[in-house]
Amino acid sequence: MANSPSGDSVIDRLVRVLETFTADRTVQTASDIGRRAGLPSSTAHRLVDDLVRSGLLERDDEHRVRLGMRLWELALRGSDALRLRQAALPFMEGVQARIREHTQLAVLEQDEALFLERLSHPSAGANITRVAGRLALHASSSGLVLLAHAPDDVLDRVLTGPLPAISPETVTDPTALRRILAGIREHGYVVSPGSVESVSTGVAVPVRDRGRVIAALSVILPRDASTDDVVVTLRAAARGIEQALRSDRD
Amino acid sequence: MANSPSGDSVIDRLVRVLETFTADRTVQTASDIGRRAGLPSSTAHRLVDDLVRSGLLERDDEHRVRLGMRLWELALRGSDALRLRQAALPFMEGVQARIREHTQLAVLEQDEALFLERLSHPSAGANITRVAGRLALHASSSGLVLLAHAPDDVLDRVLTGPLPAISPETVTDPTALRRILAGIREHGYVVSPGSVESVSTGVAVPVRDRGRVIAALSVILPRDASTDDVVVTLRAAARGIEQALRSDRD
Repeated sequence: MANSPSGDSVIDRLVRVLETFTADRTVQTASDIGRRAGLPSSTAHRLVDDLVRSGLLERDDEHRVRLGMRLWELALRGSDALRLRQAALPFMEGVQARIREHTQLAVLEQDEALFLERLSHPSAGANITRVAGRLALHASSSGLVLLAHAPDDVLDRVLTGPLPAISPETVTDPTALRRILAGIREHGYVVSPGSVESVSTGVAVPVRDRGRVIAALSVILPRDASTDDVVVTLRAAARGIEQALRSDRD
Repeated sequence: MANSPSGDSVIDRLVRVLETFTADRTVQTASDIGRRAGLPSSTAHRLVDDLVRSGLLERDDEHRVRLGMRLWELALRGSDALRLRQAALPFMEGVQARIREHTQLAVLEQDEALFLERLSHPSAGANITRVAGRLALHASSSGLVLLAHAPDDVLDRVLTGPLPAISPETVTDPTALRRILAGIREHGYVVSPGSVESVSTGVAVPVRDRGRVIAALSVILPRDASTDDVVVTLRAAARGIEQALRSDRD
């Protein structure tokens, strides 16, 4: 539909425009967007004008552009991400009240862990995770739980692809990773000390809906914190989320 | 750009497709989407195919379509909505821990109050607000705070437009509304008993950034609950959010 001479559609170009916005780059000019999206300047300006007219982008007095509240609304209103996050939030708050560090919820998206929510205590330790941010499946505790229950094609792609070390302690050997994933399926949780940052330990458990793992619930602790109570707390919260998802459906 | 014979662009058609998804309708067929969006079936099918290819929509085994996690990610990652909500969440949790009812954050969007966040206590009373849902500016406590500080053109449009009664007690007289708005500007809060639902009272205060009101923070209480402590709690939380937004910028 409406393909350009190079064969990309307006939707492809829209995605490239949206991809230029990040947590650290929330305001841009149309020219910046065009350059970063690899679009001819005239194409970028026309598309940005169209997006501003629709409210998906907003333009300020200095003619700079940002993501629109309308885009946020349309992306969330009917989304499973919102439904899952709303079901999970009260239980995440319960975990947060007890553990007082970082509590996170992630889903599998395009072979990475995408974080839907993060609650953090003011005094909590290091944590690079952001809402709507991603981490490698093989490196993060959430990612490992998602990978342990991922479809075979995802598992094969990840384990045969590049496995970069995020920290000096990230496990990057496919055989060792397969052992970790088998352990997660057997025991129902993972403890990953130092795999993302050497000062932190991630602990994660699966969250199921209709028998399928749909998310990972995790906490990020200071490296040497005890994890026994954390696993029990996370599991109880995961059961609560699963129950809330069932009630939500009934 | 890429306009159809009827003059609407692909972006217009995309917005119409996204608008067909709501909190109560998260899964649809391409034919349903076309019908609800007022698009010819072939156009709807082609556009949905394009959106599924890009990940903005997702298709399940039964060929039904839902909003994609990729859309959620792109809409949130660089958005002011997320930045504001992240700054507000710890303070909303503080309000929630103290008041134990519903705590909400809303912004002005297209002459309505758009709700960015809602925290609810399990035992809290009635409340029709939803995250990514909207309420009329003149009827809700959040909306009244936003309207009291809205640009003149918004105020004029709202007060000269239709002012539907959401409940039997919604104030719909423009003169009475102007008096309420002046009171909000003078006292810095509003208490709205029964304006949305007769069993509830909304209490809202403004949240400022760079001297401009950018949001309303509110709680929804049972109708006859005392509101004195609530106003003090909301004001302290609004100051906290404002401070967090300043630190976020520095």
